[in-house]
Amino acid sequence: MRGQSRDFGPSGGAFERMWAELAPVGRAASTGGYRRFAWTRTDAELREWFTGEARARSLEVVGDRAGNLWAWTGDPDAAAAAGRPGLALGSHLDSVPDGGAFDGPLGVVSAFAALDLLREQGFRPPRPIGIGCFADEEGARFGIACAGSKLLTGVLDADRARALTDADGTTLAEAMAAAGAGPGDLGRDDEALRRIGTFLELHVEQGRGLVHAGAAVGVAESIWPHGRWRLDLRGRADHAGTTRLADRDDPMLALAAAVLAARSAAERHGAVATVGKLRVEPNGVNAIPSAVTAWLDARGPAEDDVRAVVADVGGAAGTGPVEESWTPPTTFDPALRDRLAAALARPDGTPAPVLPTGAGHDAGILAAAGIPTAMLFVRNPTGVSHSPAEHAEPDDCRAGVAALARAVQALL
Amino acid sequence: MRGQSRDFGPSGGAFERMWAELAPVGRAASTGGYRRFAWTRTDAELREWFTGEARARSLEVVGDRAGNLWAWTGDPDAAAAAGRPGLALGSHLDSVPDGGAFDGPLGVVSAFAALDLLREQGFRPPRPIGIGCFADEEGARFGIACAGSKLLTGVLDADRARALTDADGTTLAEAMAAAGAGPGDLGRDDEALRRIGTFLELHVEQGRGLVHAGAAVGVAESIWPHGRWRLDLRGRADHAGTTRLADRDDPMLALAAAVLAARSAAERHGAVATVGKLRVEPNGVNAIPSAVTAWLDARGPAEDDVRAVVADVGGAAGTGPVEESWTPPTTFDPALRDRLAAALARPDGTPAPVLPTGAGHDAGILAAAGIPTAMLFVRNPTGVSHSPAEHAEPDDCRAGVAALARAVQALL
Repeated sequence: MRGQSRDFGPSGGAFERMWAELAPVGRAASTGGYRRFAWTRTDAELREWFTGEARARSLEVVGDRAGNLWAWTGDPDAAAAAGRPGLALGSHLDSVPDGGAFDGPLGVVSAFAALDLLREQGFRPPRPIGIGCFADEEGARFGIACAGSKLLTGVLDADRARALTDADGTTLAEAMAAAGAGPGDLGRDDEALRRIGTFLELHVEQGRGLVHAGAAVGVAESIWPHGRWRLDLRGRADHAGTTRLADRDDPMLALAAAVLAARSAAERHGAVATVGKLRVEPNGVNAIPSAVTAWLDARGPAEDDVRAVVADVGGAAGTGPVEESWTPPTTFDPALRDRLAAALARPDGTPAPVLPTGAGHDAGILAAAGIPTAMLFVRNPTGVSHSPAEHAEPDDCRAGVAALARAVQALL
Repeated sequence: MRGQSRDFGPSGGAFERMWAELAPVGRAASTGGYRRFAWTRTDAELREWFTGEARARSLEVVGDRAGNLWAWTGDPDAAAAAGRPGLALGSHLDSVPDGGAFDGPLGVVSAFAALDLLREQGFRPPRPIGIGCFADEEGARFGIACAGSKLLTGVLDADRARALTDADGTTLAEAMAAAGAGPGDLGRDDEALRRIGTFLELHVEQGRGLVHAGAAVGVAESIWPHGRWRLDLRGRADHAGTTRLADRDDPMLALAAAVLAARSAAERHGAVATVGKLRVEPNGVNAIPSAVTAWLDARGPAEDDVRAVVADVGGAAGTGPVEESWTPPTTFDPALRDRLAAALARPDGTPAPVLPTGAGHDAGILAAAGIPTAMLFVRNPTGVSHSPAEHAEPDDCRAGVAALARAVQALL
């Protein structure tokens, strides 16, 4: 979007206004990237924005026991009790450190814009429509990705979640309490889940599948199995100038071995693996480190291959990787997926492209919990994501909103 | 020392009191290590302590244009003008991150204790005796080791020093101003240098040379050439789950190559090399880094070998190392060294051991500036330094104080 003022179609004005309002929130001037971390002041600003947009559309906003926000039309509880639960759209507003503008917010903004479009078209939904804003999807602060949807569905234990700490040692419970949220209520929320008959998340693509397919919008097929592991590499702090090489116990050497093993093992096993986060102690130029902590992110089409990568990295590092999160492969509801691909057919009548992805999403967590779930992707010209350079063209964002509105009509 | 309350000889009570007073200052409860960084509140507390000890001994404390403190007996300016400049002892009170209790403070405390001992013995010094407390010896905050002595002697340019930044982006000038020191005065201080006829620094050994020699105290022969280089490894931030290995530009791989090259090149060239400090951006688990900054510390007996290590590491990393500091080899005044070794002869009459070191010291900077300079080392049972485990036995500390007092008598 990058500040373009081109018209956005019938509800385009609202999309552009929403996008412009979010643009400065949590943006780091030094990098141009976003730092929107869970339960911070920036997060509170984003939640207020979400609540304001919902109220402006006469949607009732309710929080769930996991810290997520839901804005519903009509009476979702009555509809659920009548066996006609609602259709929920949405995504998240938080970011990785120095992330892009689209990962998350595009799904939330597009959901509001699609609702606007449907209303302008006079569409009267036979079931409630909800828009969700998930808490802490990226896990940038407390280390667990999709924390909001995992808590909602009970995959993440409430006690474990409350005890998670950020880099400053603040627990999630403390951070939630400081933000005025009640960590004591954390846990699986069956009442909130009952309202969601179907969940549909629109997201910027994080690869170039749609570029190759020549389409602005596609449908998700599956999410690769993926996880995060921590490598605790221990050594002995010593003077960098006076300690003989033979007398050193330098954990930086184990780190180097682990980084190189991650790349070669990923190549060997047809997966991807990344060491993107490190902590060095004491991190002094003239001190051999006493400890290096490294985090390994590994994913791939096949679970066994991902596990093999992690084992190889542990072997090279000489330590057992500690699993911090693991998400098995997720295949989205095939019938739902095919209906959407047909509803979003291209001008020549062929169905919309159907793509796998290596990225985890709240939609994947809901799908794994048995909720009929689907995802739409919007074309990303470079494929770059989790970076200030992440981008989608305005025309493609507009096509995404239109596709989301069509999908709602098709599913309801 | 570790809280032992054993008697410390004639001036032992004062030594133990001073040691106990310094013990809690800047100590991190989580690691037991010291975080005494230049121009912080902790640094101010250490400076106040130094000034109090000096005043209790009727020494006049004067700062120099480099931020160092000097406590003198008598009138050092008059003595210098008369061609009889003083004998200065001392060391520093700052630390590396999570450093030990001895590196620096042992020299300062021993200097006060040696002066006490000389006075108790009725020694009347024919020339002024000074005790120096150097600013920012470790360079932990602003990246330049021995910043205080380098500024004093003009080796470090004042404008460059003022512009140095810490991890938070605070400049040295700002930090000094916040501490009430005048960064505008920074620069070579000929007036302060003229007072120092001879400089003598006592320091805990940072290796096991004295363990092997079976002696509590030794004399320094030389300081290896040593320096610090920065490696700016650039890549491209991308999503860890969706970016194919072939499409990645991951600077963590260059880091791994640099770390392994540092070790193998050091082995090959008979030097030591350490990568002890890193900065990763954005440092997120699920983001390929956009940049990794690594600092290389390299030292060795021969300058050419150290340069060869740095070149090999740059080649492996694919980038030119940026030199942040370089100190050529320093040989301490041979006549002074031999006088001290003889004055500190062992019970069997053999001279005290004479040892080279890989550690830089303010004494080395003063020696390079042409001041007759010597160092005494106190035995370190494990050789460990720059670590909370750094240690010297009380008996050896006591021997160090006695040796320092004997050295003063021998030199005056």
